[in-house]
Amino acid sequence: MIVIMKPGATKEQVDAVIERIKDSGLDVQINQGSEQVVLGLIGDTRNIQDVAFRSYQGVDKTVRISNTYKLTSREFHPQDTVVDVDGVKIGDGSFVTMAGPCSIEGLDQIRETARMAKAGGAQILRGGAYKPRTSPYAFQGLEEEGLKYIRQAADEYDMKVITEVMDEAHIDVVAEYSDIIQIGARNMQNFKLLSAVGQTGKPIGLKRGISGTIDEWLNAAEYIAISEKSPVIFIERGIRTYETATRNTFDLSAVPIMKKLSHFPIIVDPSHGTGVWDLVPPMARAGVAAGADGMIVEIHPDPANAWSDGPQSLNEKNYLKMMNEVDVIFNAMKQIREM
Amino acid sequence: MIVIMKPGATKEQVDAVIERIKDSGLDVQINQGSEQVVLGLIGDTRNIQDVAFRSYQGVDKTVRISNTYKLTSREFHPQDTVVDVDGVKIGDGSFVTMAGPCSIEGLDQIRETARMAKAGGAQILRGGAYKPRTSPYAFQGLEEEGLKYIRQAADEYDMKVITEVMDEAHIDVVAEYSDIIQIGARNMQNFKLLSAVGQTGKPIGLKRGISGTIDEWLNAAEYIAISEKSPVIFIERGIRTYETATRNTFDLSAVPIMKKLSHFPIIVDPSHGTGVWDLVPPMARAGVAAGADGMIVEIHPDPANAWSDGPQSLNEKNYLKMMNEVDVIFNAMKQIREM
Amino acid sequence: MIVIMKPGATKEQVDAVIERIKDSGLDVQINQGSEQVVLGLIGDTRNIQDVAFRSYQGVDKTVRISNTYKLTSREFHPQDTVVDVDGVKIGDGSFVTMAGPCSIEGLDQIRETARMAKAGGAQILRGGAYKPRTSPYAFQGLEEEGLKYIRQAADEYDMKVITEVMDEAHIDVVAEYSDIIQIGARNMQNFKLLSAVGQTGKPIGLKRGISGTIDEWLNAAEYIAISEKSPVIFIERGIRTYETATRNTFDLSAVPIMKKLSHFPIIVDPSHGTGVWDLVPPMARAGVAAGADGMIVEIHPDPANAWSDGPQSLNEKNYLKMMNEVDVIFNAMKQIREM
Amino acid sequence: MIVIMKPGATKEQVDAVIERIKDSGLDVQINQGSEQVVLGLIGDTRNIQDVAFRSYQGVDKTVRISNTYKLTSREFHPQDTVVDVDGVKIGDGSFVTMAGPCSIEGLDQIRETARMAKAGGAQILRGGAYKPRTSPYAFQGLEEEGLKYIRQAADEYDMKVITEVMDEAHIDVVAEYSDIIQIGARNMQNFKLLSAVGQTGKPIGLKRGISGTIDEWLNAAEYIAISEKSPVIFIERGIRTYETATRNTFDLSAVPIMKKLSHFPIIVDPSHGTGVWDLVPPMARAGVAAGADGMIVEIHPDPANAWSDGPQSLNEKNYLKMMNEVDVIFNAMKQIREM
Repeated sequence: MIVIMKPGATKEQVDAVIERIKDSGLDVQINQGSEQVVLGLIGDTRNIQDVAFRSYQGVDKTVRISNTYKLTSREFHPQDTVVDVDGVKIGDGSFVTMAGPCSIEGLDQIRETARMAKAGGAQILRGGAYKPRTSPYAFQGLEEEGLKYIRQAADEYDMKVITEVMDEAHIDVVAEYSDIIQIGARNMQNFKLLSAVGQTGKPIGLKRGISGTIDEWLNAAEYIAISEKSPVIFIERGIRTYETATRNTFDLSAVPIMKKLSHFPIIVDPSHGTGVWDLVPPMARAGVAAGADGMIVEIHPDPANAWSDGPQSLNEKNYLKMMNEVDVIFNAMKQIREM
Repeated sequence: MIVIMKPGATKEQVDAVIERIKDSGLDVQINQGSEQVVLGLIGDTRNIQDVAFRSYQGVDKTVRISNTYKLTSREFHPQDTVVDVDGVKIGDGSFVTMAGPCSIEGLDQIRETARMAKAGGAQILRGGAYKPRTSPYAFQGLEEEGLKYIRQAADEYDMKVITEVMDEAHIDVVAEYSDIIQIGARNMQNFKLLSAVGQTGKPIGLKRGISGTIDEWLNAAEYIAISEKSPVIFIERGIRTYETATRNTFDLSAVPIMKKLSHFPIIVDPSHGTGVWDLVPPMARAGVAAGADGMIVEIHPDPANAWSDGPQSLNEKNYLKMMNEVDVIFNAMKQIREM
Repeated sequence: MIVIMKPGATKEQVDAVIERIKDSGLDVQINQGSEQVVLGLIGDTRNIQDVAFRSYQGVDKTVRISNTYKLTSREFHPQDTVVDVDGVKIGDGSFVTMAGPCSIEGLDQIRETARMAKAGGAQILRGGAYKPRTSPYAFQGLEEEGLKYIRQAADEYDMKVITEVMDEAHIDVVAEYSDIIQIGARNMQNFKLLSAVGQTGKPIGLKRGISGTIDEWLNAAEYIAISEKSPVIFIERGIRTYETATRNTFDLSAVPIMKKLSHFPIIVDPSHGTGVWDLVPPMARAGVAAGADGMIVEIHPDPANAWSDGPQSLNEKNYLKMMNEVDVIFNAMKQIREM
Repeated sequence: MIVIMKPGATKEQVDAVIERIKDSGLDVQINQGSEQVVLGLIGDTRNIQDVAFRSYQGVDKTVRISNTYKLTSREFHPQDTVVDVDGVKIGDGSFVTMAGPCSIEGLDQIRETARMAKAGGAQILRGGAYKPRTSPYAFQGLEEEGLKYIRQAADEYDMKVITEVMDEAHIDVVAEYSDIIQIGARNMQNFKLLSAVGQTGKPIGLKRGISGTIDEWLNAAEYIAISEKSPVIFIERGIRTYETATRNTFDLSAVPIMKKLSHFPIIVDPSHGTGVWDLVPPMARAGVAAGADGMIVEIHPDPANAWSDGPQSLNEKNYLKMMNEVDVIFNAMKQIREM
């Protein structure tokens, strides 16, 4: 970390900062330039906030050199982490599809969707039993009953399950039925929940927050990684911007950035990323080409009658067509990786 | 709610939508225009998602007329709700100040800050015992020990307490020591937590989410209001935008908007709204002039050595100066209200 | 267009709106619902602002049904427009690459870059002679001298030229040397400039504004299209959001959206879309897979010594590698289109 | 400026950066730390881009210490600049109001609005003769005829005129009729136009761009200030964010920030800042309390029939009421300044 003093900073002001640095157990390197003094902090600065120094008089700017996260970083763990979801590998160079409805609506619906999902090549079944809803009057999910249904449907079609947990009280029950535990966008910085799911040992699907920065996302993963039990699967699902033509702005650049900064796999969610079903296939293809390790998509046997997210859900015909396209692009990517 | 069909929508497409409306227990009014059919939904549409209809073929747009929230709306409750915090009234035309440090760092620090806060006219002491921190390696708060300290300091200076709760597990202990329970920005859409704090009967200080819309904020309040036990105090604390000159973009327009749409009081947080201490006084004055019912500000006996948020904390001298200015503007506002 | 009255709107208020509608030369369809009156405007509403009605008492909401743009819309012109740049076709199902430096720095530099560009398969040479720079003290471009250099370099390698014009005064000189005239992001809503370049008959490369919406972009194109002389090539170059890990947030969803709403081709600019050279190849691949008609990328013989945009420029080796990857993905897309 | 090398940067990489610095005519100070090398650039770095160094291998980060603007900065010119608009002073501690319609619609309308404006205490009449409109089919302004009308109306009521110029071709005619030349939000970075209006010697009202940063805004002013002829009046008019409850997000923090960084006066535009007429008075009051030097507001004798911006225009009664409130807050601010 570097602290840059203002051009006219007095010796007393510089000394006050130096004293604080030393009080934090760090060494300091003093660089007396022609215009300003630059102080370099030497030692482990991971739990030092660079902004703290901005409250000292005479300080102009502070710059963080090292990241606050460690276990999540590729620097710390150069090899890709391959997440093993009860036999299904994510992050090993394959492209894994998770598909299913937004909400589990009943046993028949989830079984029929599992059939569709499997037919298209998905290996993991998604579906919500606990639903975060903007309004308290909207359908909140079938809860444990829903979990039973999705488990049964997945088992019938030899698939794995991913489903969301919204609070600590339900971690045990979700972990009982699900293979991957999903943390939703609204909970990316629910730090108590992150710490708690990290204790399950299950892989955690960590959605990017509605306006989460890349840096916050990596730090959120660190809350899970610190348990050294649960691996993380990042899920890019679009961010909130001024644009209203799509539900969110799908930030595909996050794929190569996260690959560069972290060893955990990253998958994409073109359904939430766009919010419009006919934009999902091109964005799924783009996700493969950007280098994602997989995707999670919303499908429904009858989108017009889905209890939630119908407009962004694919019906069987469009889903199967998309999966064929995704295959073609994925084969091209394999060819590129071998070049 | 209104569903607008596309110009060339077929009779079958229109009938499918009508059937769905009737299946939802609503009546429908069919308006056959020259260009397109417009369907009006008649009945209680609060738990109907307008987006659901967008997945029907032939549907062009949907428009929600009534809000999804009810108990929070001024329509439902035309008079201002005055929140009584153990004798301190918020929303009765007065201007209430909550002041204190970001983090409770120890008994001495919080007592000294309480003295400062009281000297400036604050009636409520703020301070965090459970801290939501981006990095797991940063200071996470003194927890229950901190709660004891802030209660003791507040009692000594005859002040009330506001402090944040981050998860359901700590609601009881926070409710034991605090007069107002604060929901932080990262938890505005932690729906389980909202429902749970609503059961305490304590006033809830509900911060706007980091990228929370006005509509989402009102719906979040509804999760609390639905308990019919705890009143809500809205806290505008700035939103995330592209601008980096301030920590957040302080959206003061939220004050008159929330006054128009809801009966609950709204206060402002110029400390988080700007992130820079010397911007706090002008924005505090602006908050009063915009019609806020109060404010919450960060102060510290020694900002340069604060464990968190030092750069946005006011020292005693600047805080007292600001409070004098706020008084002058508040007197002007009283004069305006009597005009 | 639809005007929705408030539930308690009086007959006088409804009549005032109806009068205004009729004064605008339109017919009105009155739908008396159980809760509110809904007025449908019948006729050509393209030059009627829906917001205008919001200033009438008793009006709750207004909804625009038809778009304000016409010649740009796919509805008006269902077939794809293929832009012919002096023999190079854009929008015919091929993938056209425009490559070159940010700034033209001299004859040798642009010749060397043209050689590189051509070697990788680019057909169009890019390079700025008039540079929009945040600071007046930064290099502003070689102006006409630069235009001569890029023309000479392009001719030598049998390439076409795209370059930006910043003001009306230079349209003639830019049109003399360039095959495509580019409108930069800062000028997307410089309406006088749009109208003026539309008179040249040259294809116009219209960059999306720094915070341009899809709707504004389409309307900006309409200013050009209305001349019925110059075709438009949309260029997605990323939008401004809160995220700072990339220079802009590259909104690839814009590709399928624009394809749906307009008949003009769209290309992508992964260099400005990301701002970091090693993110350019994955985002270029993603652009192809999303269905773009081409791309524009920044390359430089020696990025470290580029006069501008060095960090996002590819050197020869990385550019050639990317072009090979792009080819593989484009072949996959051809296969998909034939499925 | 500071260039921070990566921990493992080689001597060759450091030397390459040093060579580039020296080639730029600057001296360099080399600080060999324990973890990384930090290079300080010594000399005038105003026309050096810090990002340029990011394309060198081994460079981790670059930090700009000094600003790229100079004449606009308070550092360069510590005293407030008082702009004299033909006798009306802006920036001298008074609060100046500019009021008028969005569009000049005819002589009668602008005369009637001038009467209203004057009655409320406004000293400057606003009104658009050249209108930047999203759609080419919308009303584009009365052009020179409109300029004549506003001049005549202003003269009749002894007021000054502010009106917008959209392109270089009309600078002369606008300068002939107007006392202040306004640059609209869409043109904040139309650099050729900025340079050209700077030559008129007239005060320039420089609106913040639709998504303009504070830093870009100051640099835009520098394009005008560099002429050393025309003073600048900054106009905060709200920025584009994800929030749709208001037309823009009114960033009042910009007032104290600009006061800190620049010597030029800043006024606020609560009409565009909110887009809703009943939010204008509270935000006007807040603007005064934040320390603005004045405001510009939209008023209309009959907002429901305004040709543009009706929903955000105040009628006479509401305008007069607001002006009384603004007076009361301004008196409070005078009292504060004397404390």
